[in-house]
Amino acid sequence: MPSPVSSPVSGPATRITVLSGGVGGARFLQGLWHGIEQRLVPGVSPDARVTVVANTGDDWWVHGLKICPDLDTVMYTLGGGIDHERGWGRREETWHAKEELAGYGVEPTWFGLGDRDLATHLVRTQMLDAGYPLSQVTDALCRRWLEPTYGDRVRLLPMTDDRMETHVAIADPDSPSGRRVVHFQEYWVKLRAQVAAEALVFVGLEESSPAPGVIDAITDADLVVVPPSNPVVSVGTILGVPRVREALVATRARVVGLSPIVGGHHLRGMAEQLLTTIGVEVSAAGVGLHYGARSDGGVLDGWLVDEGDVADVRRVTEAGLACRAVPLLMTDLDATAAMAAAAVDLVS
Amino acid sequence: MPSPVSSPVSGPATRITVLSGGVGGARFLQGLWHGIEQRLVPGVSPDARVTVVANTGDDWWVHGLKICPDLDTVMYTLGGGIDHERGWGRREETWHAKEELAGYGVEPTWFGLGDRDLATHLVRTQMLDAGYPLSQVTDALCRRWLEPTYGDRVRLLPMTDDRMETHVAIADPDSPSGRRVVHFQEYWVKLRAQVAAEALVFVGLEESSPAPGVIDAITDADLVVVPPSNPVVSVGTILGVPRVREALVATRARVVGLSPIVGGHHLRGMAEQLLTTIGVEVSAAGVGLHYGARSDGGVLDGWLVDEGDVADVRRVTEAGLACRAVPLLMTDLDATAAMAAAAVDLVS
Repeated sequence: MPSPVSSPVSGPATRITVLSGGVGGARFLQGLWHGIEQRLVPGVSPDARVTVVANTGDDWWVHGLKICPDLDTVMYTLGGGIDHERGWGRREETWHAKEELAGYGVEPTWFGLGDRDLATHLVRTQMLDAGYPLSQVTDALCRRWLEPTYGDRVRLLPMTDDRMETHVAIADPDSPSGRRVVHFQEYWVKLRAQVAAEALVFVGLEESSPAPGVIDAITDADLVVVPPSNPVVSVGTILGVPRVREALVATRARVVGLSPIVGGHHLRGMAEQLLTTIGVEVSAAGVGLHYGARSDGGVLDGWLVDEGDVADVRRVTEAGLACRAVPLLMTDLDATAAMAAAAVDLVS
Repeated sequence: MPSPVSSPVSGPATRITVLSGGVGGARFLQGLWHGIEQRLVPGVSPDARVTVVANTGDDWWVHGLKICPDLDTVMYTLGGGIDHERGWGRREETWHAKEELAGYGVEPTWFGLGDRDLATHLVRTQMLDAGYPLSQVTDALCRRWLEPTYGDRVRLLPMTDDRMETHVAIADPDSPSGRRVVHFQEYWVKLRAQVAAEALVFVGLEESSPAPGVIDAITDADLVVVPPSNPVVSVGTILGVPRVREALVATRARVVGLSPIVGGHHLRGMAEQLLTTIGVEVSAAGVGLHYGARSDGGVLDGWLVDEGDVADVRRVTEAGLACRAVPLLMTDLDATAAMAAAAVDLVS
């Protein structure tokens, strides 16, 4: 049973929870941490702890290996192992195993499986096969990537230990039904979202349970941040895990989001397609109102939009959400820390 | 039921079966094929087909992957993918996944798992997990490595589809029993056979069945060759698969072996240790007599020894085996083809 909304926390936030997808969430987290360390975020204690609840709806099995793109992107980014230009996968990566898999004619050939990255998937798959839940596997992997730098101050949790995969229904004139359902990875990486997504199918989402620690991380937080991650297939799936939305409604923490729509367009252009599929207007206001105000059954207290979307502020405010327009491009760590500071300030 | 020894085949051999380990067997096969193509082996038809029955006793599971070192060494060598200097694994190999696995602190860190090589293990493991027997998996992998060059003229079979692993008992003063049993790979690669092998344990060998095609390949052959592979852990395990020895005793084919002992020493020095463990004299004659003459319940008609072991010829001949001393170093394809020619000639 969700408890009634409590009075908000006062004083600087020491327990921050971030509901993250992949690239956007990871970059935000990097800037947030930089801001905490450099004391660029006034509303947050310099000793703050950050819990990341990451989307696992992009996960899939390929070549017998369990791949968790968002968990890995957050882990590699915070751990200094990410390829910054690509935004995903390992830096100084090679692609020999991938070449050879293609040499065998084994599908899929289009999925980016780097040689260094493979080690992560091998360790994860072997631990899963041995019976460990994904949250414990993630913890083991983070001992290498996060612990040396962050100690116990940054914790990475999968949203669920259950298998949950986002699939996409696309038009297919060759199929008797006229459509075909593909894994989100196929839609995103192979088809590059160039065909209309007729529907999204969140396989296993309704039956999933939050991973250990997820509900507590929301309930016990001082501040919950929804970073500029994909509102449909990243934040949307996290919110779809049973009890997560209720925990957000009930938490004492202030909940603030940052718009992934900048200047009327999604930062990752391909994602606009998915908003349209679920009937959400592609605008900063559209996404903010989709999340909704906690005072009105939604999940947010505040919504930060880009200065280019200043015209959207009034609509958002009228819906009961604190709203402000600031520069929302994560061009470097300082710019991202400033975004985090503005977000915290908005709901303080 | 083994049929009685039939009269030997006359005319050039068209069906050749080779019982192979890894590096030595693979190099011999390369030279044999070169000899057939270049018509350097008078007793063999230029249209001859070669069936390789490969040892699988070195196989193991590591990082969740099924590794078949001897099958892969034969496949890569004949398919042009081998690293010639190392003798195993892929040429132009990188080791990034291995480095990263070590970065995670995952054991074993000493096993040579190359990035290109990994693709083979991923395909194999996934097919095994899907329920395909190893022989069918091998066939699928060989479609890439052998078919383009050899068509259906070279076939690679695992000796068995069953799990069979060679383990080694070594002294361990820290253990209550005073000994410890390690997988052959640990003994060979990690310990480099530098500790005494107190006993060899062929796990699963007695309960194994020959893979489909193995018995027919011996029974229907014109010529069976035992290349200079390890007599204990390569040829020894093949001979240990139930019905293989009986098939060799009964076949119409002539059976000829080439000594892996050259100038009194095993070509791969570490292997001497294993002969001692099973009580076989480390000499060309010792190994030849260990295999034994078919006329006396053994498996060979002829035994080729190195010119440096010419003193051994008499002992071998006295035991009822045709024997001759010739240069037995596989220095290049021509030298190896000459060895094959001498072996064929010995039993023609």
